[in-house]
Amino acid sequence: MKIGIYGYGNLGKGVECAVKQNPDMELVAVFTRRNPAELAILTEGVPVIAADEVLSMKGRLDALIICGGSAVDLPEMTPALARHFNVIDSFDTHANIPTHFAAVDEAARAGGHLALISVGWDPGMFSLNRLYAEAILPGSTGYTFWGKGISQGHSDAIRRLPGVADARQYTIPSEAALEAVRNGTRPALSTRQKHTRECYVVPREGADLARIEEEICTMPHYFAEYDTTVHFITAEQLKQAHSGMPHGGRVIYSGATGRHGEHRHLIEYHLQLDSNPEFTASVLLAFARAAHRMHARGVVGCKTVFDVAPADLSPLSGDELRARFL
Amino acid sequence: MKIGIYGYGNLGKGVECAVKQNPDMELVAVFTRRNPAELAILTEGVPVIAADEVLSMKGRLDALIICGGSAVDLPEMTPALARHFNVIDSFDTHANIPTHFAAVDEAARAGGHLALISVGWDPGMFSLNRLYAEAILPGSTGYTFWGKGISQGHSDAIRRLPGVADARQYTIPSEAALEAVRNGTRPALSTRQKHTRECYVVPREGADLARIEEEICTMPHYFAEYDTTVHFITAEQLKQAHSGMPHGGRVIYSGATGRHGEHRHLIEYHLQLDSNPEFTASVLLAFARAAHRMHARGVVGCKTVFDVAPADLSPLSGDELRARFL
Repeated sequence: MKIGIYGYGNLGKGVECAVKQNPDMELVAVFTRRNPAELAILTEGVPVIAADEVLSMKGRLDALIICGGSAVDLPEMTPALARHFNVIDSFDTHANIPTHFAAVDEAARAGGHLALISVGWDPGMFSLNRLYAEAILPGSTGYTFWGKGISQGHSDAIRRLPGVADARQYTIPSEAALEAVRNGTRPALSTRQKHTRECYVVPREGADLARIEEEICTMPHYFAEYDTTVHFITAEQLKQAHSGMPHGGRVIYSGATGRHGEHRHLIEYHLQLDSNPEFTASVLLAFARAAHRMHARGVVGCKTVFDVAPADLSPLSGDELRARFL
Repeated sequence: MKIGIYGYGNLGKGVECAVKQNPDMELVAVFTRRNPAELAILTEGVPVIAADEVLSMKGRLDALIICGGSAVDLPEMTPALARHFNVIDSFDTHANIPTHFAAVDEAARAGGHLALISVGWDPGMFSLNRLYAEAILPGSTGYTFWGKGISQGHSDAIRRLPGVADARQYTIPSEAALEAVRNGTRPALSTRQKHTRECYVVPREGADLARIEEEICTMPHYFAEYDTTVHFITAEQLKQAHSGMPHGGRVIYSGATGRHGEHRHLIEYHLQLDSNPEFTASVLLAFARAAHRMHARGVVGCKTVFDVAPADLSPLSGDELRARFL
């Protein structure tokens, strides 16, 4: 399979590394909006091409992995590229998925290509686990917990405050909430009850720490609805202890069966990831394999993880899958 | 969807209860090898029909759920019935799946029907999680832990011993083994290290307890390879504390990504089930919905959970699925 990477940030680099773990895949081009001459990639012999020359590779890629941001990049990139390539993105603005889906679907159908959107772990693997659980246990109650992990959006929000040089924010699931859900009592949990937020902040020299802490903890949508802790540390400490991009979380479904719903069942899916972008990249590649196969069978338009038969994700044959995993 | 149940033991009863939780499904017949006149089922107005008259319902069922045992029943029943109906079974003798698959595939194709075999939680949901994890993290190491739960096969093995009136056996995953796997070190674990076995035995009057315990603990394949504990209790105690059919377990995959595999990832899927047969029945019904839809699109032959796109499991539309679960 010939793979292209469109965008070479953390996610694009993760895809590049993941290609090496999949012997049936080959990286054939990296596209960048930066100056290609100044971009050094890890894989020898693979051309770095300017993003606006992407059509020069038309017909030479089995799948193009679009590694852009959901806020600005993907709503424009994915429909534009789906006219010319089979594409996969990790669009994760949940509320805007219907709009994105419609735009990508129209473009992919117009070009006779297949697009898979919102692939990753949430949306992605968490979405699949929600669907499987609800289909098996109709009427069950589902919970999604995130963390412990770095939230890029929340870290950015802190960094934008005056007096802040750098920051990292950890989203942490509440142990008490997890316990309550696992007890099978299906509690109604408020935002504050489910997660806490822990912030590591490097202040600029002479900054008013009390004001920064106050501004973080009262920031609407980001922190005001949560119990938030702020730690002031040095740039050195931040680099040493908080430079990774760990994340993860849990999808838990609590349901019941029996003549009178007398038997309780708990389904829990847990991810614990050292590198959020590298894991997302690995999910993207497995679904790129499926996209290529489905397109070869004549499937076009926009699809999601819900439309992909699991067998299409694996390089193994049906016989091998049944022998090894069933 | 018109559902038939073939075999009315614990699993068949579970399917009957689960049908009531799925508003798009209707139970239209229960087939039994016992005397239909003497079988009372829970659902009013549904005919109980002798198993050998099953063909009287040909053309009137969208899916027939075969609720027989894997050792003797299913290898014969599933191919025979797949010639005439869309069928779903929970065949769970892992080593014999290729043979069963081939026989069912031939029969289903001959009759123009769709058969889904080995549907449940293991094989079934656990299999899916193994496939998803390995496709995302190639070269990762997978572990399956069962329990805490009642093993029917091991309970039966104890019951066959002279001097034993009744017995229940719990399979229990080792906390130390779980901890070692979650640490990401990918330990090689022996059978003895992964699970322990706990037996609750009701002896017949005057039985030699020491001999029974010795015979249990040294029984090859079933107990000799495990650390086994035997408790002798009364029939009353067994009924009171051990009459349920709880089970569950965990599939854990430990893998790595990055330029040098420097980032570790853990994927864990956990089921905790009050009723093993009722949960299995719920999985069977979700896949029955998919079988009916796939057959309506022209798919025939034998398939497994690997071949089913998740969207086909749910009664919701694509739009609804994306809005609610993605």
